[in-house]
Amino acid sequence: MHDLIIVGGGAAGLAAAAYALDKQIDVMVVYENLGGKINQKFTMHADTDFLVGHILVHLDVPGAEPEAPPRLGADTVHEFERQVTTQRGRALFDRVRKVAKQGDVFTVETERSGALQARTVIIASGVVPKQLDVPGARELVNHGLGYSPVSYARALAGKTAVVVGSTPRALRGAAELARTAAQVYLVEPTIMPADDPLAVVLSRRPNVEILEGFHVIEISGDSSVDSVTVERDGKVRRLTVDAAFADVGLAPNSSMVKDLVKTDAEGFIVVDGHNATSVPGLFAAGDVTTVYGEHTLIAIGEGARAALSAHDYLLAHE
Amino acid sequence: MHDLIIVGGGAAGLAAAAYALDKQIDVMVVYENLGGKINQKFTMHADTDFLVGHILVHLDVPGAEPEAPPRLGADTVHEFERQVTTQRGRALFDRVRKVAKQGDVFTVETERSGALQARTVIIASGVVPKQLDVPGARELVNHGLGYSPVSYARALAGKTAVVVGSTPRALRGAAELARTAAQVYLVEPTIMPADDPLAVVLSRRPNVEILEGFHVIEISGDSSVDSVTVERDGKVRRLTVDAAFADVGLAPNSSMVKDLVKTDAEGFIVVDGHNATSVPGLFAAGDVTTVYGEHTLIAIGEGARAALSAHDYLLAHE
Repeated sequence: MHDLIIVGGGAAGLAAAAYALDKQIDVMVVYENLGGKINQKFTMHADTDFLVGHILVHLDVPGAEPEAPPRLGADTVHEFERQVTTQRGRALFDRVRKVAKQGDVFTVETERSGALQARTVIIASGVVPKQLDVPGARELVNHGLGYSPVSYARALAGKTAVVVGSTPRALRGAAELARTAAQVYLVEPTIMPADDPLAVVLSRRPNVEILEGFHVIEISGDSSVDSVTVERDGKVRRLTVDAAFADVGLAPNSSMVKDLVKTDAEGFIVVDGHNATSVPGLFAAGDVTTVYGEHTLIAIGEGARAALSAHDYLLAHE
Repeated sequence: MHDLIIVGGGAAGLAAAAYALDKQIDVMVVYENLGGKINQKFTMHADTDFLVGHILVHLDVPGAEPEAPPRLGADTVHEFERQVTTQRGRALFDRVRKVAKQGDVFTVETERSGALQARTVIIASGVVPKQLDVPGARELVNHGLGYSPVSYARALAGKTAVVVGSTPRALRGAAELARTAAQVYLVEPTIMPADDPLAVVLSRRPNVEILEGFHVIEISGDSSVDSVTVERDGKVRRLTVDAAFADVGLAPNSSMVKDLVKTDAEGFIVVDGHNATSVPGLFAAGDVTTVYGEHTLIAIGEGARAALSAHDYLLAHE
């Protein structure tokens, strides 16, 4: 029986694990993707002053290109990863099917390693961005088509981008890109309330065109996105762009606790200010929770607090 | 006029600044202590197997002693510090007297540099632990007398410590120390409710003695704490210890906004899940807020979220 099982190996899960190891807690991390989002590579066509034609910009290779700043927090997550993986028996590559509680003991059912037991559990299994279901979307994902506009604002300076979505994140992404991009198209399948302050700012921006009620019908490009075709009531427009970003919602990876714990309507796990869920001894952290802010540094803090709270629980239940 | 002024140069303030610089926001950090708590040094006497007599253990020199693990998050904070200080005009060594708001503009009154203006402000000015006011306390602070028991649990393995205080942090600290220390004395000036789960666990520990209703009257030692003298109703006991930890409460550094923003009864700044305060455009992060968990990693996450929210505000108020 472990003191703590952490479900998920992204920023939140690894921060929780590093904290737990520091406190000499018997911890096991069950992960499918160690490092989580920080491993995602994104490339796009980019004209530069010093190269003719198209080059690929690897945004997450620090120092490789002038447009490639290291992503804030990535080094810290790599260091946590190192701390967890250099200790024997602390990380298990597997998928968690279900978490159940009987008495004071949690059972974590895995796909390949059977059932594990623990006195506390932290769910840090993250989200999956909802994907566009149109021709070209599957082929071009991470090649000019991204699901997080805010991460790439710097690389789009002077370029043209389209943002698809009516979520607050989509609007924020468009606003951030518009500060430096030459042209931003905002494709809003659902029309925003006119008094949303960000919508008002965007509507005044000379380099932003808002396409209300339009839907994406195709994404095109050879090795990277070249154009996005949108449509409303039979009217079709083809937008020539350097990159396309969709934010049509996030799907939390919370199915393993859906019968156990309180979630919101979309499945995000409800946590309090201690990262505690509705089940004593069960904590959650990072994007899978109702907490605000999908950023590596924020996930690190949430993971650490979940581990602190799990530790509090363990100390009070010895 | 700056986009953002950050008050405080600890983990939360520096994380907020690093986030803001990454977003190319015009930011200024006004600090009195760059790095904050991570710069604190703590030493104590320690008998070791390989040295006769007393040596000084420097707990925050990574790798210097086997008992000296690097403090989790300290490297990250140093990296943020480097990012902030290598850019010209982003950090100002000064004390903030008062923050006021007129229209949409904040005025930050400093002691030596006059008044600065900004569109948003993040307060990340931290806390000061309340000090014991007894003979020896002032002389021995950080020399065997600390104000955060949980940071030093590892170094106390097999040793004897006293924890002073009735706060939840004091109880947690005592419980954590008791897992590895030979003997822990818990001096509780205020008697805890008997049904507190942590109090119950502590009362059952064979290596914990709870001294209810006792007060510290003296702390003694030559270059580091050797003993703590306590008293109740004229009964005096002298406890021989390797270290003493007091947690008699934290005082938030929030006086510069006390007339502006909503705080709790003790002066901690009330923030919501976006790190927003009661004043639009004014955010707060870290130990100065009502948020749970005084840990470097948590402060990093809170600082980043405050900066994200300040950025949201700036985007929506251009």
